[in-house]
Amino acid sequence: MYPVTLDGTSVDCKREEIKDYFNNTFSLYEKVFEVLKNDDVFYEKSEITRHPMIFYFGHTATFFINKLINMKIINERINPDFESVFAVGVDEMSWDDMDGSNYSWPKVDAVREYRAKVKELVDELIMTLPLTLPIKDDSPMWIVLMGIEHERIHIETSLVLHRQMPIDLVKTVDAFNICPNSSSTPKNSMINISACEIRLGKESSHNLYGWDNEYGSYIESIAAFKASKYLVSNGEFMKFVEAGGYENSEFWDEEGREFLKLTKVTYPTFWVLKDGVFKYRTLSSEINMPLNWPVDVNALEAEAFCRYKSKEDGVKYQLPSEAEYRAIYNEAGLQDIPAFHESRANLNFYHYASSSPVDEFSFNGIYDVVGNVWQWSRTPIRGFEGFKVHEAYDDFSTPTFDEKHALILGSSWASSGNLIMKYSRYAFRKHFYQHAGFRYVVSNQEQEKETDLYESDELVSQYCEFQYGDTYFGVENFAIATARIASKFATNKTKALDLGCATGRATYELAKTFDKVEGIDFSVRFVQVGAKLKSDGYVAFSSKEEGELLINKKVTIEDLGYESLKEKVSFWQGDACNLKLNFNSYDLVMATNLIDRLYNPRLFLDSVEERLNADGVLVITSPYTWQESSTKKEFWLGGYRDENGVEVKTIDSLKAILGEKFELIHLQDLEFVIKETARKYQHTISEVSVWRKR
Amino acid sequence: MYPVTLDGTSVDCKREEIKDYFNNTFSLYEKVFEVLKNDDVFYEKSEITRHPMIFYFGHTATFFINKLINMKIINERINPDFESVFAVGVDEMSWDDMDGSNYSWPKVDAVREYRAKVKELVDELIMTLPLTLPIKDDSPMWIVLMGIEHERIHIETSLVLHRQMPIDLVKTVDAFNICPNSSSTPKNSMINISACEIRLGKESSHNLYGWDNEYGSYIESIAAFKASKYLVSNGEFMKFVEAGGYENSEFWDEEGREFLKLTKVTYPTFWVLKDGVFKYRTLSSEINMPLNWPVDVNALEAEAFCRYKSKEDGVKYQLPSEAEYRAIYNEAGLQDIPAFHESRANLNFYHYASSSPVDEFSFNGIYDVVGNVWQWSRTPIRGFEGFKVHEAYDDFSTPTFDEKHALILGSSWASSGNLIMKYSRYAFRKHFYQHAGFRYVVSNQEQEKETDLYESDELVSQYCEFQYGDTYFGVENFAIATARIASKFATNKTKALDLGCATGRATYELAKTFDKVEGIDFSVRFVQVGAKLKSDGYVAFSSKEEGELLINKKVTIEDLGYESLKEKVSFWQGDACNLKLNFNSYDLVMATNLIDRLYNPRLFLDSVEERLNADGVLVITSPYTWQESSTKKEFWLGGYRDENGVEVKTIDSLKAILGEKFELIHLQDLEFVIKETARKYQHTISEVSVWRKR
Repeated sequence: MYPVTLDGTSVDCKREEIKDYFNNTFSLYEKVFEVLKNDDVFYEKSEITRHPMIFYFGHTATFFINKLINMKIINERINPDFESVFAVGVDEMSWDDMDGSNYSWPKVDAVREYRAKVKELVDELIMTLPLTLPIKDDSPMWIVLMGIEHERIHIETSLVLHRQMPIDLVKTVDAFNICPNSSSTPKNSMINISACEIRLGKESSHNLYGWDNEYGSYIESIAAFKASKYLVSNGEFMKFVEAGGYENSEFWDEEGREFLKLTKVTYPTFWVLKDGVFKYRTLSSEINMPLNWPVDVNALEAEAFCRYKSKEDGVKYQLPSEAEYRAIYNEAGLQDIPAFHESRANLNFYHYASSSPVDEFSFNGIYDVVGNVWQWSRTPIRGFEGFKVHEAYDDFSTPTFDEKHALILGSSWASSGNLIMKYSRYAFRKHFYQHAGFRYVVSNQEQEKETDLYESDELVSQYCEFQYGDTYFGVENFAIATARIASKFATNKTKALDLGCATGRATYELAKTFDKVEGIDFSVRFVQVGAKLKSDGYVAFSSKEEGELLINKKVTIEDLGYESLKEKVSFWQGDACNLKLNFNSYDLVMATNLIDRLYNPRLFLDSVEERLNADGVLVITSPYTWQESSTKKEFWLGGYRDENGVEVKTIDSLKAILGEKFELIHLQDLEFVIKETARKYQHTISEVSVWRKR
Repeated sequence: MYPVTLDGTSVDCKREEIKDYFNNTFSLYEKVFEVLKNDDVFYEKSEITRHPMIFYFGHTATFFINKLINMKIINERINPDFESVFAVGVDEMSWDDMDGSNYSWPKVDAVREYRAKVKELVDELIMTLPLTLPIKDDSPMWIVLMGIEHERIHIETSLVLHRQMPIDLVKTVDAFNICPNSSSTPKNSMINISACEIRLGKESSHNLYGWDNEYGSYIESIAAFKASKYLVSNGEFMKFVEAGGYENSEFWDEEGREFLKLTKVTYPTFWVLKDGVFKYRTLSSEINMPLNWPVDVNALEAEAFCRYKSKEDGVKYQLPSEAEYRAIYNEAGLQDIPAFHESRANLNFYHYASSSPVDEFSFNGIYDVVGNVWQWSRTPIRGFEGFKVHEAYDDFSTPTFDEKHALILGSSWASSGNLIMKYSRYAFRKHFYQHAGFRYVVSNQEQEKETDLYESDELVSQYCEFQYGDTYFGVENFAIATARIASKFATNKTKALDLGCATGRATYELAKTFDKVEGIDFSVRFVQVGAKLKSDGYVAFSSKEEGELLINKKVTIEDLGYESLKEKVSFWQGDACNLKLNFNSYDLVMATNLIDRLYNPRLFLDSVEERLNADGVLVITSPYTWQESSTKKEFWLGGYRDENGVEVKTIDSLKAILGEKFELIHLQDLEFVIKETARKYQHTISEVSVWRKR
């Protein structure tokens, strides 16, 4: 099954196509979990940094609901608890919550039931949502497609996690058949790739769903170069292992040496050393080493091999860049699906649920240009010219634009959906394992220069300037002022929550008086700034001056005087309308410029009291700028007339909603200024209301 | 020929359809001008308040170019002079320029040549513009459709103007055939219309082009009522004339009496009194009075007739409301074209280029529900709930939302295109003539309450508050401050131009020191505020406080102290990048917050010196907030890096462009604050540069 095209002539037929594609995806994902031996295994982690499998089982269903709620396509949750506990935490990110002890995970059967309900809802939405063709990225149906492709990604990554599970916790599932062919190591050689101009990135009018990072354009001239005929096989990699490659630090860069130090690995992750002999781990079995199958490694191991081989041969080998890979793709005469049929490569589960020999699928004499295993590139993922985040998933790509996430190319046997398409772009940290290997190239292409470290996301930069930049019109820094007011009124100072923390400045400021402060924001794009200040010791951003002209600003943790505070703060992604249960026992909850940006502020206000200790204080600051794009009118707390024509103001609604459980102890105006350019500012008067729990 | 549908399955076929529709429209318009006896007649006006016909001949072609330029679909003008002189001035608006002596009109053949060039360009664009189906209102092709439908309107209104031309200046054109049938007055009677709920307004997904005022929704419950079977015929109206109806002021309201006083008319405009006998004027002939054809009158005459007939019969007759008309439409079982075939009514030039008997086209026993002549309603045009202006033509409807423009319904023999469609809505001042008559109703429907006089257009209101409202953060009123600075530096004080005058405050302020001040803005939505202050003596607007809550503010000309200044100011619609030639001989040109909103600021800067007298002063204020939505990046004056990577700042470009012809004599920052809500403001630092002509 291929991804659904966005265009077409019949809306009804398109709904049927989408429904089939959704059902196929949803049930294939459940099939993948049959690999786990029994329900107990759902509570096991295959790797220390990841969640137990039950999380992933629920997560892909919850994703549909959370995105549909956030985009205001539906108003009602199916299960608020599940949709909090299964909400985020896929990539290994320091601000995410991987400590399983914080959760009491639900029963597998309850999650199965939940998934069935989600399926029913999505099936119905597919048949009833407004739909015109072609489907554009602002269509509600785009969100359904997003949910489907998100689940396709998890089909692939769950198969990695299952393959990492102890062998006695998994079982063989007939649908996932292992390639029966293997033989000795084929001799690799180099193929000439012609010079060419490469244009990457797809048009917004492309007729398939795409993630934000795929759109835009990038052009690069590629000189002629050579690429290895085959992916590097287990047999070829074995020489590196036998030569003591893992022990020789000259083959590893700093990040690689750090990886070796932490993990102490001495051979590839899916090799199993039994009685002095290397066996090979498939999805659910251990087999004799298939020397002619591609080796599965992370990027650090692949780079180390290239350095080893360069020394052996006296020629500089490296991983291909993204553009060089496209040159190989063109040289091989490949076309995108469906012009290229799935049977011609090891992908889309057409042949195997495992790797296959590196000399089985040829394209014009170059093998496995797509399929078999992903191929690490040397290119860190970046947005193309014209990159824009999609508002429904604004942290899909941008947290990976950190020069530390390398692109993997070409898809694997476990890839389907968007993953097998020409224009898709996925990237991982270099120490991450996927069904991924590599081919090497000999090219004179210059190393791409590193993009600078300054935050260029316009909205994030604007907030960095707001929180860490200069003051204007004599108005005090708002994060400092709110933290001071909140500290003044808080009775106890053990733990505080900075909700809607944005780039995190007030979180640090609160840590001057509180023992522990948690900063939460809905968007990872924002929280990662505060987290980076903690981990890397600085905040760097580009502030707009005039038109496109920017000035770069950098503030260090020493400048800010926060060095001694950083162990007190932590940053988390979270939804204020559906916070995870472990966020509780606070002496202070500070909600800064938050309530008029929530999709349903009542959900937050009705539950905030439970998060507070006795004598706990709630501080709300807001200019009450209600807008339909953030909050449907039916959920506004003020700024409208009721059915009797009487004006409803937000402060009065706050008093009515909070009055029973809180006493209003302070009310004041507080200005803030957000710089848009050197000459244009938003100048706003927030209302600060301070409430003590009764 | 019917309007092109927006949906479809083949982009190529759609292009062909649009091209056919465009060519049909463009050539039909030229055919209409064949009614003028010879080229000399193109320089005649058919009515004192209108332009000579040459204007209208050029105008529909220029409209395409101006909209395409403004929407940045094309960059190059075909003929800047024509596109200035033929730009605006269709409705009779006090701020528009109807004084023919200001122009030296081009030769008719030159305009014919110009039209041919425009046709060639539009033909090419239709074949090459990016196009996906359905065509949405943000598609470049929408602008082409806008140009076509705009020309359809002028086909209808030009046929009114030609019919008003002296009979010896027009000739018979075969394509426009006059109905040969007429007879004695048919007896009118009343038909019962059932109670019903009426929903007006069309969906944004409707498959035909629409003007902004057609979209949104409006619901009204209609009680049962009666409507006249026929439109009022010349014969029926004759009784009113013979009864001295035009002389009896009790039948006329204040506006009607004013109309009679000014025009001194005593019978309908297309009646011709010859030797004591009424003849009837068709497009290009005078014929014996067709007693059974509908009378052509304006709304004031129609209302007077209703009052006369009410007195005669002792029953209250009135014009139908918009919703009542829809109830008649439904009762008659009508459907929109194409389900309803054009042959079934007198419209779309299918039968005649004239009216026809009122008892010829029946729909379920009600006659001429559509076609023959337009039918005046008693409903002033207003936007429906959800109304939004289209950015390419933001003054199509809003200037008519003044409670003074009444809707005409049902289309006429001269209607085609959008004009004959169910959802179209056109409105005119009540003294205006169209091919329009009326039918009367007896209904107990309450008079619609007048909407309040407060400007509700959000952007216009924001500017009213900015110019006439309160000050915030201690920042002085910007219009007053800029006018003071400009007056200080101007050497002579005879005539000033306030370019980008918005709602006109600085125009009045400059009149404190200048003998004469002209205020020009691109948008009629804005200039009508300054014009209204002059004509009606006040500015009234609604300022946003929180969410949707507003406060109404009203400032009178006395409050402002401008009573003695109002004869010195005048307001005009104009394009700073292509100003009409008659705007010249200024001692001061003040361009306030303008240059970073022009589609090509160089065009303004390169020509402004010619508008100034010796020693003339140019004052530019701007925060240089360049944005692609206003100005394509290639036309920015600053805020980018040049090909050498050097930062280009706007002030440096201004010095380079203006330096040869001007001396920079003053430079300062000047703050301004625009209120968005009671708590949210734009706080901007404009740069004021003052330049004296060398």
